[in-house]
Amino acid sequence: MRHLFLFIAFSIGVGSTAAQGQDPIVLRQMGSFHVGGRLIEITGQPIKEVVFTPGGVPARMDPNGKYQVEQMYVQYFLPQHRKGKMPLLLWHGGGLTGVTYETKPDGGEGWLNFFIRQGWDTYISDAVERGRAGWTNTFKGDPVFLPFGDPWERFRIGPPGSWNNEKDKRTTYPSAQFPTAAYEQFMKQAVPRWLTTDDQIVAAYVELVDKVCPCVVLVHSQSGAFGFKVLEARPEKVRGLVAVEPTLGGDPNKVASIKNTPVLILYGDNAKDHPRWSKIRQGGVGYAAVLKSAGGHVNVVDLPERGINGNSHMMMMDRNSDVVAGLVHKWLVDREFSE
Amino acid sequence: MRHLFLFIAFSIGVGSTAAQGQDPIVLRQMGSFHVGGRLIEITGQPIKEVVFTPGGVPARMDPNGKYQVEQMYVQYFLPQHRKGKMPLLLWHGGGLTGVTYETKPDGGEGWLNFFIRQGWDTYISDAVERGRAGWTNTFKGDPVFLPFGDPWERFRIGPPGSWNNEKDKRTTYPSAQFPTAAYEQFMKQAVPRWLTTDDQIVAAYVELVDKVCPCVVLVHSQSGAFGFKVLEARPEKVRGLVAVEPTLGGDPNKVASIKNTPVLILYGDNAKDHPRWSKIRQGGVGYAAVLKSAGGHVNVVDLPERGINGNSHMMMMDRNSDVVAGLVHKWLVDREFSE
Repeated sequence: MRHLFLFIAFSIGVGSTAAQGQDPIVLRQMGSFHVGGRLIEITGQPIKEVVFTPGGVPARMDPNGKYQVEQMYVQYFLPQHRKGKMPLLLWHGGGLTGVTYETKPDGGEGWLNFFIRQGWDTYISDAVERGRAGWTNTFKGDPVFLPFGDPWERFRIGPPGSWNNEKDKRTTYPSAQFPTAAYEQFMKQAVPRWLTTDDQIVAAYVELVDKVCPCVVLVHSQSGAFGFKVLEARPEKVRGLVAVEPTLGGDPNKVASIKNTPVLILYGDNAKDHPRWSKIRQGGVGYAAVLKSAGGHVNVVDLPERGINGNSHMMMMDRNSDVVAGLVHKWLVDREFSE
Repeated sequence: MRHLFLFIAFSIGVGSTAAQGQDPIVLRQMGSFHVGGRLIEITGQPIKEVVFTPGGVPARMDPNGKYQVEQMYVQYFLPQHRKGKMPLLLWHGGGLTGVTYETKPDGGEGWLNFFIRQGWDTYISDAVERGRAGWTNTFKGDPVFLPFGDPWERFRIGPPGSWNNEKDKRTTYPSAQFPTAAYEQFMKQAVPRWLTTDDQIVAAYVELVDKVCPCVVLVHSQSGAFGFKVLEARPEKVRGLVAVEPTLGGDPNKVASIKNTPVLILYGDNAKDHPRWSKIRQGGVGYAAVLKSAGGHVNVVDLPERGINGNSHMMMMDRNSDVVAGLVHKWLVDREFSE
């Protein structure tokens, strides 16, 4: 039926061309909203006169009063031909935004388009204090800015010692799938992040889950911890959890409460041997064992053991991103989250 | 032809429902990218050990070296049935992001969906240091945070003196079109902004225009000044300019160079009498007169004089936003930018 629809769409799409020979994306709706956050009160500040645009007309601004803080941003795409039985939420990692899942740095389609094309109602978000969520100077400590070369080794594009500021002297892991020519485009996606805002981020995610779930949540890196925390807070809302290289698992003391939610934990290539990632992976594997022993449903997948090689920490941007997304989608279909 | 297509799409869209009874949105492609910016070098900082996630494995971070700064974010939606003859770029105002044009605070469809549905290849962006563009601590001065009540009067939802922290004591202009019950949702869209970054913002916009234009650019408020500056820098690329309540016009000394680009300047209700907006409007009207006397094509429209009443500064969020967008679209069709 779907093929018939697409055939007809192509046949009568007068004057239009499909980009890259792909099927059109047909949405019954798309939109965005902010969720969560609270109002705080600031007092005792002097009234200012602000010139917002050089040469423009000054405005009087009273900085006292209420401020909106700690909300988050969500954008959603609802395919016309829906196959997922509940929404799929894609949560990004630290120092990044929902852009993680959009067009890949090399220009190819990312996981957002992949999952929409598979018929999932897909929700992308920017966590509290990241991207379109906005930020305020009310968080504790200083924000961290990502040095240009830092992710090259920390995200396992190349092994420790492989980064070089000279482009032609950088090296990668053998068979690395990250599109290194697009590394600069990737780094343009980076945003500052605080180290003290986990509670505020989780509070907003809980509000999001209360608003749009039951659902499946896919988390990455920093949001691994958020995914498990929100699952523990709302086990009846988060029906499935896919954790892509989570930097932390859940609370071993709360595994019994989440045992009805299937969990998939994925690791890319070279995680086992990397000085830092081997510890992170071991933490995840250990947590999975505790969850399993409590009757939980958890699969830990090292991609190389499935014959999928060369993946970095940013596997949704790697050249073979569709292969990894396909594995995730199949896991969800096998658990009847989708047709 | 389009109606036939949509009829068929509805007829065979098995198991799916159109939200709010509207036609599906059919895209030949959608995606995003970052553009502009540069690399800077930081030296002399001590190496840090960072715990990104409480309880996680520490990472060594050398804060010295290069940093990516001053890029901007762009998201695009390309309708299958294209009618606009060139892309339409929507640029947001100060302290906001591209979210300005997405779903309205009251949940209705915004100008992004409106223009996609009219067949425009539509590009939404977050300017340098706003939203998904990211930001760094390399800008001069302090960022400005928008007090919760400030836009109520400054954006002409209510007249001077009408804001009250108590919800039930706020007043609006008579026949105000802003959905005041959704004011808090609107304020969740606010992001910090610096007052010293115009040059960096314009530089990135010029790179965007070089990448995706010839085009029509629609600007709002702060981006009014950016629209005229980019038009002056690239008169052959910006083929049409729609300025929605620009806080500043172009350079009166450069009008001859942009006289081939039609310009529409729009003002909402109560702008003429407002203590600050009357000055802003007079600046725009004065600039338009200079442009016209040099042979330029410029229309200044006060919406109330077209029988469109009650519009605030955020007319793309007002209840009658489609009426205003329709006026813009008709102006563009009349100038043969679209079928």
